[in-house]
Order: sequence, then C-alpha cells, then structure tokens
Amino acid sequence: MVAIAHRLFQEPHKLFSLGTFADALGAAKSTVSEDIAALRQVCERLQLGRVETLAGAAGGVRYTPLCTATQMRELAEDLAARLRDPARILPGGFLYTTDLLSLPTLVGRLGAAFATFFADRRPDVVLSMEVKGIPLALMTARAFNVPLVTIRRGGRVTEGPSVTVNYVSGSSRTVQSMTLPLRAVPPGARALFIDDFLRGGGTARGVYDLMRECQAEVVGVGVLIEAAQPREKLVDGYVSVLVFEGVDEREGTVRIKPSRWTLGHTAEAVGR
Amino acid sequence: MVAIAHRLFQEPHKLFSLGTFADALGAAKSTVSEDIAALRQVCERLQLGRVETLAGAAGGVRYTPLCTATQMRELAEDLAARLRDPARILPGGFLYTTDLLSLPTLVGRLGAAFATFFADRRPDVVLSMEVKGIPLALMTARAFNVPLVTIRRGGRVTEGPSVTVNYVSGSSRTVQSMTLPLRAVPPGARALFIDDFLRGGGTARGVYDLMRECQAEVVGVGVLIEAAQPREKLVDGYVSVLVFEGVDEREGTVRIKPSRWTLGHTAEAVGR
Repeated sequence: MVAIAHRLFQEPHKLFSLGTFADALGAAKSTVSEDIAALRQVCERLQLGRVETLAGAAGGVRYTPLCTATQMRELAEDLAARLRDPARILPGGFLYTTDLLSLPTLVGRLGAAFATFFADRRPDVVLSMEVKGIPLALMTARAFNVPLVTIRRGGRVTEGPSVTVNYVSGSSRTVQSMTLPLRAVPPGARALFIDDFLRGGGTARGVYDLMRECQAEVVGVGVLIEAAQPREKLVDGYVSVLVFEGVDEREGTVRIKPSRWTLGHTAEAVGR
Repeated sequence: MVAIAHRLFQEPHKLFSLGTFADALGAAKSTVSEDIAALRQVCERLQLGRVETLAGAAGGVRYTPLCTATQMRELAEDLAARLRDPARILPGGFLYTTDLLSLPTLVGRLGAAFATFFADRRPDVVLSMEVKGIPLALMTARAFNVPLVTIRRGGRVTEGPSVTVNYVSGSSRTVQSMTLPLRAVPPGARALFIDDFLRGGGTARGVYDLMRECQAEVVGVGVLIEAAQPREKLVDGYVSVLVFEGVDEREGTVRIKPSRWTLGHTAEAVGR
C-alpha cells in the first residue's frame, strides 16, 4: 500500500492502471484493488487529498492533492501574518515576497490550493510569467500533472518561431511585450494562468491575448496576492489567496488579509 | 502508516519528531515507531528513497528521495533519447529543451537525482539562474527541504539592497552581470548551484564570485546538460546528467549522451 501511495503522491493527477501496480509489485490485481480502496479511505479520513478510481478499459486510479476549507484558511492566514513583518516593506510601497515564493514546501501547499480552486477546469497547461511566479506555477502544474509553460517578458526568446503580444501594464501604463515559443501551447489547449501578483490585471489581459493568438483558451487565472487598488481590474473571474491593501512606510505597517476565496471557499463557488 | 508516508513524502528531508505523528494521529508513540520501521523497510526494498530515524532529543524521522544507480541511468538514457529528436534543433546549433524542463514529474525525478549526487553536501540553499533552470532548481531544493534562491541577470532587481557581480560568458566572451538581493543568502550559507546548461562555465564562475561577496560557500554545481566543447571549463568539480556533443543541422542529428556520473554513479564518487 505504501508503494502505491508513493507513486500516487509523487505523480499527482496521473492515471495509473491497476496493472501497473500489479506488475511492479508482483501482486494480484485484486490485492492492489483492496489496497487502493483502503488508501482512499485513509486519504479521505485524514484529509490528505482525493484518491479516485475510474472504471473501464481506460480506467485506473489517480490521486489529487486537495485543500480542505480549513487548510486553505490556515494557509492564507499564516501567509498574511508572515507578510505583515515590517522588514518586508520595500521603497515605493512594495513588499518583499521572493523568499516565501521560494520555499518548496510552502509553494507546494499553494499549488495544492490552486489545484483545489480550479479542480473542475481540467487545464492542459499551466502558464507562468517569468520570474517570480514560476515556482508557484510549477507546483500548480505538478498538482495537475500538466506541463508548465513560461511566458517571457520582451522578445528575447531564442527558441524557434514565437508569438509576441503587447500589453499595457495596468499600474505603470507602459506598453510592454510578452513572448512564447509557438510550439509551447498547442491549439485548443486549456490554459490556467498562475502568477504571484495582480495589480491592474494588464499582464493577465495580455495572457488572454497571447492565448487567442495560440488558439488556446484561458480557463482560469489564479494569483497569490491581488492589490485592493485599483478596484477595477482589466480581467474578471480571477482567484486570489491574499488581498494587499498597502503599506504605511512611516508607521511600518503592512495591510494584507486572506481573500474571500480562502475564507468562504467552496470548489464549486470559485470564479463564478 | 499511509498518513506518515504522506507527510514524509510531501516534505522531503524535513525532520519530524515522533510526537508530531502521535499527536496528529492520536496514536501511541510506540505504534508510530513501529509504523516508521515498517515504512523504512518498504522504502528500502522497493527503492523509493531513504527513511532515516535519528535518536535523541533533537531526533525524529525524515525521508530523502534517492535515485538508485539503475534509476539514474534509465533517467539519463530516456532523456538523451528524447533530446535526439531532430525537431529539437534550433538555428545556431542550439537544442530546444524548454518543454522537458517544464514537465513537473520529470524535473521532480531530476531533483531527486541531484539530491542523490549531492547527498553529502548538506546545502542550506539551492541557487538557480533565471529563467530556464528554475524548475530544476526548485525540485532540487524541494528534495533537500531548503529555500530556492534565484539569481537575476542584469541589475533589474527591485527587492531592496542587492549585490551584483560581473562575469564573462564562457562561450560568447561578453561581459554580463548577475544580481541577488542581499538578504537572500545569509553569510556562512552552503549553496548548491543548479542550472540547465553549462558550456564554458562562465556563469558558474560568476556564481562563485557572487557567493564570495555574500560570504557564502558554493558546495556543489549540478547541471542538466554540459557541452562537450570547450573541454576546458572555468569551473571544475561540477556534475552533469547529459553531455551534448553538438548537432548536424544538415543531417538532422543530435549528439547527446548520458554523463559518466549517471553511468557509473555512486553517491560517494561524485564531484571528487
């Protein structure tokens, strides 16, 4: 059972046939089947995620990391508390978040949180924008068992034919460009965009344009932190973990709080 | 036992006290202890990695993902075979590798491979150079349960005081710069640098310089692919997974093979 759990936990969302385990372990399919049933119960009882069995020729078993509502709220509250540290205030009212975005365990949990938010969207790829959002997007891609695709700023890509769109940064009002190798996203793909920060939504808007050029579809936008201002964003239907209301540089206070999705979260209610 | 395995597998290299599991599961410490012993045996027998128990007040149990020599060789051979696809040849004799570096499962396995290579180095941080090497470095950091630190090209960092060094790209002979927020790497830290490609070793050389400025130590350099040419590198003691000998653009052939570390690998012999 541990061997099966190891495979399932290491490769989330991948569908394994019972035969895979029977062969690898030299066990009867019926034994494997019993082990999986027991594993499903344990995961359910201890809230470790979901073990699903699919019947039929194309069937098998797969594991999906899931956050419960409680885990989600605790994760957001813990993160908000850490981000309130005045030492994080950077000149210009920015917040130092890079260290947290680089802790593998923490981004692993956040990846599971995004996988829970977007469980019903069945993305084929997870998109990230270089540089800071990459770890978060990779762990989300891992939870969905789909490739990560990293969009590059500017047109500096030396990876064959590429597609570039311009976008207006919602906060600075400057025109910038983002580029993707043409072969990175196949036509018809369902793309989930994950980023560390959303202020005006200009970058996310650009991602929609970029996906249209690739004949792909954006099925969701998830960000770790959204800025409370401006209230009007260039995209809607996104999901955030935290809401950043600003800093007081003189008093050394950081105003940041869990988002409504992490507080009253249900998988069904997300982004609707 | 599954609950314990889940925690250990999800957070590799983290030391858990037996009390943690006893409390979380409402079980006696003796039961937890028996489960861990059984888990250790299963992981050993099925080569799923190492479960270690440390005695004493600061003791506990931790899981380390490890590649066996066979798994390492198969991983390198599989990867080399995929990279020999002529469709990967880019103008200028480069190779398209971005898609493989973005597959969570594959980079997860490579992270475990690097964790095996450098098992005795006990890094405090894993360093990566933006952009392509980030997923590989993150999964290595995950295997060691240490933070990832991403070095930025150029001086575009807006994350507080930073340290910048210049380096000469070993292949193009141009002077470039790399930057790190000063707070990212504490003095005395043991840093493992993981990157996707090493040609002349100029970037790795720069990382040594950067760590000296941070009063930190480079305890290892691991790359996915090293170029066979130039033979003389600016650093030594690095470890690679694959050796790239070049492409024939007219014939459409890619010459790439597993490195000696993946073929005759023993954890003790690496990088000495």
